[in-house]
Amino acid sequence: MKIALAQINYHIGNFASNKHKIIDHIKRSEQAGADLVVFSELAISGYPPRDFLEFEDFVNKCNAAIREIATYCTKTAAIIGTPVFNSNDKGKPLYNAAAFLSDGKIQQFVNKTLLPNYDIFDEYRYFEPNNVFDVIQYKGKRIALTICEDLWNIQDNPLYTINPMDKLMGQHPDFIINIAASPFNYHQINIRTEVLKRNAIRYKLPLFYVNHVGAQTELLFDGGSLVMDRQGIILDELKYFEEDFRIYELESVSAGEKLHGKTNTRQEIAMIHDALVMGIKNYFQKLGFQKAILGLSGGIDSAVTAVLAAYALGNENVYNVLMPSRFSSDHSVNDAIQLAENLKMPFDKISIENSFGAFEETLKPYFADKSFGITEENLQARTRGVILMALSNKFGYILLNTSNKSEAAVGYSTLYGDMNGGLSVLGDVYKTQVFELARHINRDKEIIPENIITKPPSAELRHDQKDTDSLPDYESLDEILYQYIELRKGPNEIIKSGFNEGLVKRILKLVNTSEYKRYQTPPILRISSKAFGMGRRMPIVAKYLS
Amino acid sequence: MKIALAQINYHIGNFASNKHKIIDHIKRSEQAGADLVVFSELAISGYPPRDFLEFEDFVNKCNAAIREIATYCTKTAAIIGTPVFNSNDKGKPLYNAAAFLSDGKIQQFVNKTLLPNYDIFDEYRYFEPNNVFDVIQYKGKRIALTICEDLWNIQDNPLYTINPMDKLMGQHPDFIINIAASPFNYHQINIRTEVLKRNAIRYKLPLFYVNHVGAQTELLFDGGSLVMDRQGIILDELKYFEEDFRIYELESVSAGEKLHGKTNTRQEIAMIHDALVMGIKNYFQKLGFQKAILGLSGGIDSAVTAVLAAYALGNENVYNVLMPSRFSSDHSVNDAIQLAENLKMPFDKISIENSFGAFEETLKPYFADKSFGITEENLQARTRGVILMALSNKFGYILLNTSNKSEAAVGYSTLYGDMNGGLSVLGDVYKTQVFELARHINRDKEIIPENIITKPPSAELRHDQKDTDSLPDYESLDEILYQYIELRKGPNEIIKSGFNEGLVKRILKLVNTSEYKRYQTPPILRISSKAFGMGRRMPIVAKYLS
Repeated sequence: MKIALAQINYHIGNFASNKHKIIDHIKRSEQAGADLVVFSELAISGYPPRDFLEFEDFVNKCNAAIREIATYCTKTAAIIGTPVFNSNDKGKPLYNAAAFLSDGKIQQFVNKTLLPNYDIFDEYRYFEPNNVFDVIQYKGKRIALTICEDLWNIQDNPLYTINPMDKLMGQHPDFIINIAASPFNYHQINIRTEVLKRNAIRYKLPLFYVNHVGAQTELLFDGGSLVMDRQGIILDELKYFEEDFRIYELESVSAGEKLHGKTNTRQEIAMIHDALVMGIKNYFQKLGFQKAILGLSGGIDSAVTAVLAAYALGNENVYNVLMPSRFSSDHSVNDAIQLAENLKMPFDKISIENSFGAFEETLKPYFADKSFGITEENLQARTRGVILMALSNKFGYILLNTSNKSEAAVGYSTLYGDMNGGLSVLGDVYKTQVFELARHINRDKEIIPENIITKPPSAELRHDQKDTDSLPDYESLDEILYQYIELRKGPNEIIKSGFNEGLVKRILKLVNTSEYKRYQTPPILRISSKAFGMGRRMPIVAKYLS
Repeated sequence: MKIALAQINYHIGNFASNKHKIIDHIKRSEQAGADLVVFSELAISGYPPRDFLEFEDFVNKCNAAIREIATYCTKTAAIIGTPVFNSNDKGKPLYNAAAFLSDGKIQQFVNKTLLPNYDIFDEYRYFEPNNVFDVIQYKGKRIALTICEDLWNIQDNPLYTINPMDKLMGQHPDFIINIAASPFNYHQINIRTEVLKRNAIRYKLPLFYVNHVGAQTELLFDGGSLVMDRQGIILDELKYFEEDFRIYELESVSAGEKLHGKTNTRQEIAMIHDALVMGIKNYFQKLGFQKAILGLSGGIDSAVTAVLAAYALGNENVYNVLMPSRFSSDHSVNDAIQLAENLKMPFDKISIENSFGAFEETLKPYFADKSFGITEENLQARTRGVILMALSNKFGYILLNTSNKSEAAVGYSTLYGDMNGGLSVLGDVYKTQVFELARHINRDKEIIPENIITKPPSAELRHDQKDTDSLPDYESLDEILYQYIELRKGPNEIIKSGFNEGLVKRILKLVNTSEYKRYQTPPILRISSKAFGMGRRMPIVAKYLS
């Protein structure tokens, strides 16, 4: 039996495009003599469709698309993820299903049993868990068809009280198929491989895994679909961060034959780099935009953002605006220009002095004797924000936000100023990782001027300002933040790990009291196991560690 | 047996304050000779604690508070909602529990079975559903203790496959207690009463219901705790939108004796009004702020916002800023001043002309031959936004956002301009309802100048602009939006209800393509069954009806 894996970049709710891609790959599979082609979880709708699933009209459109696709499955069968209505009179209105199509018809639906409802996942919001277990019988083989999380209840303290594969084993399947929508984070690929391996070994079955690829707003799907033998050895892995399509002989897989030699890189910073580039690219493509604008300050965050955008959109499509003020250093301006010239990106230098001055003048009678302070720092950031948005509106650029995760965490940024943007590129990248990214970008030659990487970080909103005036060094800050945000450790645990009590309490308080700012932040490309945004849901009005 | 109901306004994560209030009410109950005092769901943490529940430290603090409170329950027993750890080796890490405290100790935990995971609810994100059913035995009575949603599976197409009360009936309870955290919307009170009534009638048991009261960021808890006899007749109802405390004789309730004559108003617009005032008040109180700032344009949205804020915070604490431009009409300025004077609210008139002009001048070389358009309209809105934020920063005001739900829906607003604010007061109030609110405010005397209510709505961002230049009349717009947003109807259903096809498609497209703006909107006080924000989760990058 020949099995094709189709790793595709879907567009949420774009039924015409998703259907077209699926039918194309069915034809391609048929031409190659494949018996079966496997698409990923909720392929027909794109993932995650979120509350579109509450619209009957949306689910009807999914169902209509599946019925139409079935008519193409005359020679090659297909497995495709789709939402279906729950016809029982009890329970949630939908199932998260895999449709099995063959002989030109929908033959069977297999529904998902384990519904992730943590971090960025909300599946129990929409779907009823499955409780009927049947293998798919096709051409003399018995397929244990599972959907993503269905294989994930294999740890020591399982999150769910049942295990779908245990149920299916009674019907003696020949192999496992898992269709998934498993988003990237820089720890996830190893965890995922380990989970799949444990399944292959526990059930002594070969395994075909098909994941989504591509970005859906903040979620970055890395692909990495794979084929594993019954010892849990990866025989082949599809590309990361790109569409891919390959065909396997079941017999070879069962025999444990390695099929391709080339493996994907798993170097952390390289994967983060590629994930972010894909995130920018797909955001623009899927919204139908070509050009980005950003404020290039001469600091490292906007420099890295500009380079990633140039790689995603083409250098000529990234418009860099330098907006110096009386507090900007000459080297900042020169470094920024040098970077733009290195990549031949268009740039302009627009002074904020007149606009900033007009605000100061307008507000003078009301501010009276109050001295220069945070208000005036914010005022500069907001003046820049207004200029960028005006250019964005006038010419149809999308503004890229350049804040990093460390400053987003502690609120070291101005709402409606440097927090502006359609997309935050680095909002899930700690400052220490931004430095790593810069080094990675410069690995072969100096693209980002060395001075941008080595000089002490500063917002340049008043004279001689340094980030370390108000924050600890980034090594310490990022480690405290990681323990609190990613690991959800409490203050005492963090202090015990070797940090000063006053510092820890101050940092956690900053994180919790700046929740109101993050509530209004642009969507953030997610590369960690706990990003700000849909996966981290905090009350604004609260009194905890604050 | 004497049973006290304590309807309290909790502060999320403020264990000191929540504990203090609870202990106070236990003492008060004891002094009044009550045998039992009932607090609401997750009282100890406040509701919803959201991802704070992922911090062991947070749950430990809840548990410690409950243990301490138990020592006060020597004469009067108490029922208090709290998260507890799940000690099984399978399943989610927590239960949503009710602690039964008596004789100075924690006697028993009853865990929640039905976990709402729709709209604003995420309970399956944190909690394992209960599957052990026991009544509480106390002073010769058997109490069916249930938690909120546990009583809600009583409709024809139940959302859950089991029903906790059916399980408890085997143990012959004498009455039902339901502790809840059921947020307000203007349909909810009638629905809730009906659900409770069906339970009382089906199980032939009297019912004591204790709800939260007070605002938690966007969620507005109305209270309305009540006592019902076995025929489902409300014998007494606690106040709406205020803390309240009452004591009942179980024997009188069982006998169906009406206890108080006074009932709460259920007039829709009056409830919305009171809910919003409470929402503003609690947002400021719980964050420790006293003063609000807003842009008073002379239009109806900012007028209603200013009045609600004045009622919530005191007239002297609402600072109104008039920011006319060359496009502002005289009557707008005069109407705004009249309103401020009617309520003796402080106000200033700050022209945006200089700042707006400085931006125009700065941008001229880049805009070149491009004509005045949306960019310049946004520029005015953003210039105002910057001025308001500067005053907010300098003096510690919280900026109130004045956008209504109709414009938030179709994106008729400027990101980083009039969308600014710490809290959106009217973001869940359709324009037609804003008019109703204005009429309600003026029911006894003219507080909002009549001209503000009767003139045609305009953003005044260019000459002779009217909202109807780009939008249909608000009656039609709001009806289409209601069908799409609240009822989740598809385009064909809406068209069939009597609207022009082109219009419906245009409106739905506007809603879906302005998702990116709403992503960055301030938290919106929720008064409807489907508000923008945490209860409506949409992809930004998508292609559905767009």
